Amino acid sequence: MLFLTGWRQSLRGQTPRSVSRLYSSSASAAASQGKSRFVPQDGTYPRDFKVSGIHCGVKKNGKPDLSVVVSDSACNGAAVFTKNVFQAAPVTVSRQAVQDRGGRGIRGIVTSSGCANAVTGAGGMEDARSMAQTLDAQLEDTKNDELLRSLVMSTGVIGQRLPIDKILSGIPKAYKARSDTHEAWLDCAKAFCTTDTFPKLLSRTIDLPDRPGYRIAGITKGAGMIHPNMATLLGFIATDAPVSPDAIRSILKHAVDRSFNAISVDGDMSTNDTIALLANGSAGGPEITESSDGFVPLRDAVTAFAIQLAQLVVRDGEGATKFVTVRVRDARSFADAKQVASTIATSALVKTALYGQDANWGRILCATGYAGVPVEPFRTNVSFVPTDGSPTLALLVNGEPESVDEARASEILAMEDLELEVSLGTGGGHSASYWTCDFSHEYVTINSDYRS
Amino acid sequence: MLFLTGWRQSLRGQTPRSVSRLYSSSASAAASQGKSRFVPQDGTYPRDFKVSGIHCGVKKNGKPDLSVVVSDSACNGAAVFTKNVFQAAPVTVSRQAVQDRGGRGIRGIVTSSGCANAVTGAGGMEDARSMAQTLDAQLEDTKNDELLRSLVMSTGVIGQRLPIDKILSGIPKAYKARSDTHEAWLDCAKAFCTTDTFPKLLSRTIDLPDRPGYRIAGITKGAGMIHPNMATLLGFIATDAPVSPDAIRSILKHAVDRSFNAISVDGDMSTNDTIALLANGSAGGPEITESSDGFVPLRDAVTAFAIQLAQLVVRDGEGATKFVTVRVRDARSFADAKQVASTIATSALVKTALYGQDANWGRILCATGYAGVPVEPFRTNVSFVPTDGSPTLALLVNGEPESVDEARASEILAMEDLELEVSLGTGGGHSASYWTCDFSHEYVTINSDYRS
Repeated sequence: MLFLTGWRQSLRGQTPRSVSRLYSSSASAAASQGKSRFVPQDGTYPRDFKVSGIHCGVKKNGKPDLSVVVSDSACNGAAVFTKNVFQAAPVTVSRQAVQDRGGRGIRGIVTSSGCANAVTGAGGMEDARSMAQTLDAQLEDTKNDELLRSLVMSTGVIGQRLPIDKILSGIPKAYKARSDTHEAWLDCAKAFCTTDTFPKLLSRTIDLPDRPGYRIAGITKGAGMIHPNMATLLGFIATDAPVSPDAIRSILKHAVDRSFNAISVDGDMSTNDTIALLANGSAGGPEITESSDGFVPLRDAVTAFAIQLAQLVVRDGEGATKFVTVRVRDARSFADAKQVASTIATSALVKTALYGQDANWGRILCATGYAGVPVEPFRTNVSFVPTDGSPTLALLVNGEPESVDEARASEILAMEDLELEVSLGTGGGHSASYWTCDFSHEYVTINSDYRS
Repeated sequence: MLFLTGWRQSLRGQTPRSVSRLYSSSASAAASQGKSRFVPQDGTYPRDFKVSGIHCGVKKNGKPDLSVVVSDSACNGAAVFTKNVFQAAPVTVSRQAVQDRGGRGIRGIVTSSGCANAVTGAGGMEDARSMAQTLDAQLEDTKNDELLRSLVMSTGVIGQRLPIDKILSGIPKAYKARSDTHEAWLDCAKAFCTTDTFPKLLSRTIDLPDRPGYRIAGITKGAGMIHPNMATLLGFIATDAPVSPDAIRSILKHAVDRSFNAISVDGDMSTNDTIALLANGSAGGPEITESSDGFVPLRDAVTAFAIQLAQLVVRDGEGATKFVTVRVRDARSFADAKQVASTIATSALVKTALYGQDANWGRILCATGYAGVPVEPFRTNVSFVPTDGSPTLALLVNGEPESVDEARASEILAMEDLELEVSLGTGGGHSASYWTCDFSHEYVTINSDYRS
């Protein structure tokens, strides 16, 4: 679970700990090739944000391992972080930076991949702070500012110190290389990757009812297991809309609760998870606050965008062959609906059944029954919903098993994308979605044989 | 999680959903053969309990599928049940029976395997009640008793009605076949099995400080996945000690919280889980109540016995190649310690690392960090503890990674039995243990390919 820095730490739900690696089997290689369709060929990026991704020497394979994201002008911003007790140094430094600044005056983010700077003690804290200070030093107007203007993120192996000299000497190079082109954004996304099979980048234009043309872009990563390892989920979203610090925090909480906190690959929560939202206002217009007419439309647009971004992490889950939406309806609250969805989405029995394309509705019902929220057993419904627009297949109707058409079930389960729908029958009417992948032999291989 | 019937429903923790099947691979077959060492060659059983296990026709393979456990005299008793919202009919009937009787006057248990009688509606309720009534009808002194004197348990496929005629005509045969021999107890244990690789039976003599020679015996099962499936954990413990109903409930709660509610195969909770404790007092002596001197010694002896019985379920976990004790020390409470132990024991990343014999202490630390209980990161210790008496291997000391001797780590991880020890450094001093198995390719095969 990610939670909001400083003021608001009330996010609830399961943590996304999402991971990916280059697969060894031919079937997986084919699947991974097919994922290039999720990499955009171009984009329209928020004004006055310049980014880069370079190789500075953390990764041994020469791939991009250092990125900067810089706004020409000061941003309002917020960030959510892992709730893991063992928080990596960059998490501690970035949380403090956002808090000290009251969510104002943030200029950029520096990210390194290949080493997570986690469980590294006081030296690791100094390394993380130096990274932010070094990016700050590139910004002319912050020379005499005591407070950090840059956030810092790292991902990769834990329990090892960063090769900090390489990183600190790389930051000015990355700063000079910054640009607002699509290529620069793609390089930046590549520098977030550890063992992702594709870079995760999205951009959109957001048209609010009273003002068209705000732009939004985001980058995230699937996390890889690197000995002695922990997965890490990093990401940021940048927009040129003008948004107040309070509104940004509120929007980010709402969006992450429904996106990055509603995905699962295997249910483990990392030490480094961080998602930031920066708004520099370069598109002009009056500042959007929580009481503005534009607030709810902007919040919902950012949420929809964050959901698409987070779904890319599930697409690249370790060993994943399926992308599965778990939709829970008719709960007494959003939190209840999400709790059930999360329980189904993280059940090893549900996930192995999806891998085997087995119509095991009993496992879905079982997970629903132990989620710990109110359910009406004799008004519960379970269905498979195909994503090609063909009819839904009911499996359990008002608590009574249907006589299932196995051929039809097999058709739906053979699809790469599908949806499990559970209605709890409480009369409460609340819904939630969760996105997950299946649990394959390849997952066990990736996570057991890494060092052999 | 199992919880206590009627009066006391406050048990907390993760549910054991424990499963086993005959393995297809040669490596697994060898492992499974080795498990015959867990089947006792003889035993000393509690006085005046008579048991049997016969084949009545639920299972197609001719193996025992119906058992009775009968005491010659009335027992005091208690039972704990699954907390799953979707409770099977036998759970509802047995819970009501114990509740109606106030934990007194129970005579026996009838158990069928091969069909769980879960999600079977009103007809299933009638079937479960008929099973108990049919065993009751064999007992001369209960002819005119309105309340059930027998408990009922079932395990196997869900969403299907029992072949109730075969079962009801089998019960008098099973009753006639009852005996107090070791062979009868072993047959009874076999009739609890679904796809277990070995029957799970234990017996002991309990010597209390002021009175030697009470006897105790227990049977449980590993649960198998049978389409459309759910795993089921069933078990009972019988003793000839004289124990009051209040003391029995208290002892069973204490024991199950530290045994059947402290094991995990894959963290899913079934619809049928039931553990009963019956005491007929045939060994004589004054009734043991919660204020008796013998209460705590008896409680601790039953708990130790229940732990040994529950561990057999983990030994027979689906695809399991390792038996792992997770011991968490220095928590602020038993509940906190158990929460951390449970989080580590159910982490897919920890379990796959154990399968791969990878010294991934980072995954153990990570799970510790997201368990949601107080931890002192800079006073946390993580160690591998070998079970052969050789020295412990420290991995993390006061939050600082040790320089790990990989050869020594490999030695310990190659053992079939090992222990992970985590000290939370809170100064609270409370401990808890949890037992788990590794997560193997075979687990995925068993749970994904069942119908293919």
